[in-house]
Amino acid sequence: MKTVLDLKPLVAYLREAQHLSSAISMISWDQETYMPPGAGEARAEQLSALEGMTHQMRTGPAMQRLLSKWVDLKSGTLDGEWDVPSRALLREVWRDYDKSVKLPNDFIRRYGKAASISQQVWVEARKKSDFSLFAPNLRTMVALKKEEIGYLGYKASPYDALLDAYEPGMTVAQIAPLFASLKKELAPLLEKIVQSPVKPKKDFLSLSYLPERQLAFGQQVLEAMGFNFRDGRQDISAHPFTTSFHPTDVRITTRVDEHDLLSSLFSSIHEGGHALYDQGLNPDHFGTPLGEALSLGIHESQSRLWENGVGRSKPFWKHFYPILQKTFPEGLKGVDSDLFYAAVNSVQPSLIRVEADELTYNLHIMVRFEIERALIEENLPVEALPTVWNEKMQASLGLTPDSDANGVLQDVHWSGGAIGYFPTYTLGNLYAVQFFNQAKKELPDLIGSIEEGNLLPLKGWLNEKIHRWGRTYSSEELVRRVTGEALNPRYFIEYVKEKFGEIYQFS
Amino acid sequence: MKTVLDLKPLVAYLREAQHLSSAISMISWDQETYMPPGAGEARAEQLSALEGMTHQMRTGPAMQRLLSKWVDLKSGTLDGEWDVPSRALLREVWRDYDKSVKLPNDFIRRYGKAASISQQVWVEARKKSDFSLFAPNLRTMVALKKEEIGYLGYKASPYDALLDAYEPGMTVAQIAPLFASLKKELAPLLEKIVQSPVKPKKDFLSLSYLPERQLAFGQQVLEAMGFNFRDGRQDISAHPFTTSFHPTDVRITTRVDEHDLLSSLFSSIHEGGHALYDQGLNPDHFGTPLGEALSLGIHESQSRLWENGVGRSKPFWKHFYPILQKTFPEGLKGVDSDLFYAAVNSVQPSLIRVEADELTYNLHIMVRFEIERALIEENLPVEALPTVWNEKMQASLGLTPDSDANGVLQDVHWSGGAIGYFPTYTLGNLYAVQFFNQAKKELPDLIGSIEEGNLLPLKGWLNEKIHRWGRTYSSEELVRRVTGEALNPRYFIEYVKEKFGEIYQFS
Repeated sequence: MKTVLDLKPLVAYLREAQHLSSAISMISWDQETYMPPGAGEARAEQLSALEGMTHQMRTGPAMQRLLSKWVDLKSGTLDGEWDVPSRALLREVWRDYDKSVKLPNDFIRRYGKAASISQQVWVEARKKSDFSLFAPNLRTMVALKKEEIGYLGYKASPYDALLDAYEPGMTVAQIAPLFASLKKELAPLLEKIVQSPVKPKKDFLSLSYLPERQLAFGQQVLEAMGFNFRDGRQDISAHPFTTSFHPTDVRITTRVDEHDLLSSLFSSIHEGGHALYDQGLNPDHFGTPLGEALSLGIHESQSRLWENGVGRSKPFWKHFYPILQKTFPEGLKGVDSDLFYAAVNSVQPSLIRVEADELTYNLHIMVRFEIERALIEENLPVEALPTVWNEKMQASLGLTPDSDANGVLQDVHWSGGAIGYFPTYTLGNLYAVQFFNQAKKELPDLIGSIEEGNLLPLKGWLNEKIHRWGRTYSSEELVRRVTGEALNPRYFIEYVKEKFGEIYQFS
Repeated sequence: MKTVLDLKPLVAYLREAQHLSSAISMISWDQETYMPPGAGEARAEQLSALEGMTHQMRTGPAMQRLLSKWVDLKSGTLDGEWDVPSRALLREVWRDYDKSVKLPNDFIRRYGKAASISQQVWVEARKKSDFSLFAPNLRTMVALKKEEIGYLGYKASPYDALLDAYEPGMTVAQIAPLFASLKKELAPLLEKIVQSPVKPKKDFLSLSYLPERQLAFGQQVLEAMGFNFRDGRQDISAHPFTTSFHPTDVRITTRVDEHDLLSSLFSSIHEGGHALYDQGLNPDHFGTPLGEALSLGIHESQSRLWENGVGRSKPFWKHFYPILQKTFPEGLKGVDSDLFYAAVNSVQPSLIRVEADELTYNLHIMVRFEIERALIEENLPVEALPTVWNEKMQASLGLTPDSDANGVLQDVHWSGGAIGYFPTYTLGNLYAVQFFNQAKKELPDLIGSIEEGNLLPLKGWLNEKIHRWGRTYSSEELVRRVTGEALNPRYFIEYVKEKFGEIYQFS
């Protein structure tokens, strides 16, 4: 039986390619954090040049030579007997390779150029709140995605080809019933919340809170989570994100608003959850799929587990609220921990996805999922989007956007062609609760330790059960291995029913 | 007559390669500024991987194919009739190519590894102030440099092959008499200064000066110099340096010490001078030699011109001293501008090069130049270095180091194999004064504008005369074109005689 050791030349090559990819990540990080404003044009040219080199390294003759020693490049069939890790490594390397070579160079260039222009037009259109400015570019992007689907191929739905880029193996046939059952439960639950006479007070969250102190508190929470500042850092950027150059160099960003006590804190916890995943990957496998995160959905499960499961929980605030109150004695004067907990978990239908609460967030995702399917599967014309969007928002959330900017133009994703990405956010929410539920079973004192501010047992459990495996297993296999069953929305549904039932007093 | 436009495919390729080189520069910048401490090992591996890729791009088959269309790869002879810029471009690209391919891959690997270890050992040896710990590694580095000379070849002296890497075209035959004539003048001048009863007071420079205010003042000076913060930035690092990713992204660093008013300021002006060169390169020629700095000596001339010619001049402080005094009213109470000017220009033989004044600095360089020649030309054994060093320091500066750390171990250069680098510092000093002298002739109101704090005429002149030409001309040609004659130490000698004669009152 052959092992990863037999793959030495391939692994060495992949590490080199990954160092180049990490250079791209660092340059992108710099672009969002420290780049002087005049450098934008040269930076775009640089990124495009380096991306061309990476693509060449990952699909060119050198790669083909190395990979074809063990894998049939056409079918992906392995040659010889391999142990589990090396079989996974070859399977996933081939998967990436196969996806990349299917796309003609000419298509990649056209796509890159169109996406770059489309994103710029989207920025302008959103500023002017005028979808018609953006429609021609979006039409181009949708056409390009359909062309891409033609190259990639699919079995049941053309949308599956797009989903697969973000959540490998996931299909419409799996997601559609999952989302339907979720919606069936969330809609009446939201109705109950909206009808409830309980309205958590939260005006105090927008008093004045010194940014430096917000950041210091966030850092304290990150340290408690086990984010390793020896192997990472936090900076400021316009939009929070996590990036990783190596498990020993994982960086998160946040933004801080004096009049929003929660924004920076929850962004730090959210990105911190992503970062723990990246810091928890096995550095010995750096550059190979065994040292890479599994999927966007699993990645998002880590951020959501920390942000919502931990950061919006009673046990967490039992320890941290007194500290927060000491940090901001004026702003939080007279706010007791129950009041604060309710404010942090207040549910309210709203127009903007990124500002949505834990519950309605998923309804926002479903609006996008339905529209994406219609665009790809049913050739819904792009022009119809504002109307369709507004109708779906009204039906799901009882609100009709007052403008395109607050409606169909709010998200950047489609402008760059990221269709099929949105569902991973809700998948992340579902995975998160299912994982957390399992952790509570396996670590009987988990809640007790969180109440004491000790978050390390949870981090250790996630390291052990999820992070260290990289892409050894598929998402489906991983969920089964960790929780003993397939992805099941029941855990999420029970969790929100119980939590919001208590807060809104109708359980 | 063919032009640069005929070289389009080569230029496009060189730009791509330069984008990769700039990625290396950014990663190195990050290493010195923001990298988390745990990332060192992965970072070293990444840099080595990317350097291998750059070397491959610049010497491999793709490069050969492109370059050989117009240049005979063996001899460097151009094919066809070319205008001045394209001739320069091809000449310099071939020069770089030829130097790179002469070194076998195996040698580059051995050298890289030995240099990396040697630098680590040097850090330890300096910490323990024990040259004998470092001697074996230095012996290896000297042997490797000799091996390198064997690959590169030379005409008159083997040391020329090393010089050429830092100051193309420069030879021992040119430098040795230049340095000798300089030394002949500096030694008696220094003697007069040491004997002078005038001893500028400078204890006030080490009072407490708030770091943030120091940085703000330095930034004000950088802005006055015309450093463009739209196309660059300043950060903090342990050792100040300048790096450039593109003329629109030039970064300098500084360090700041509460008890040293001059350290951060003069480092900012020095690095600012380097940065103006890099920001002044022609962005249309980015990636080709026409858009690159000419040599270390010319680069250093820009930093020294600003640091010493401007920053240690009376006209400069006429405008800036009142501002500095307002910034630090306590520390500079009772210090008038004459006293401050004398303190800034105080001359005193000392042990450490980087802390040396404008005059004795060159004597430090000559000690190193003589030892380097002896190592390379006369096979001076490495073991003899501490003794030789101390003797030469005593002979030149009248001081014998109290320890290896303050003597032969003080500089990082040799540990990494940078032999032949030191002379460019003094060449920079000489070029600087000769250039500045010419600027004063051509801009009759130059001093007047500096006295008003308007440094932009000087910047504009340097942009026009030096920066925008890149590597179009050799250093020798450039100096002739700008000043009408070859490099001439007379200007420097006259400058220091006049300046220090006045300060020390013996002129």
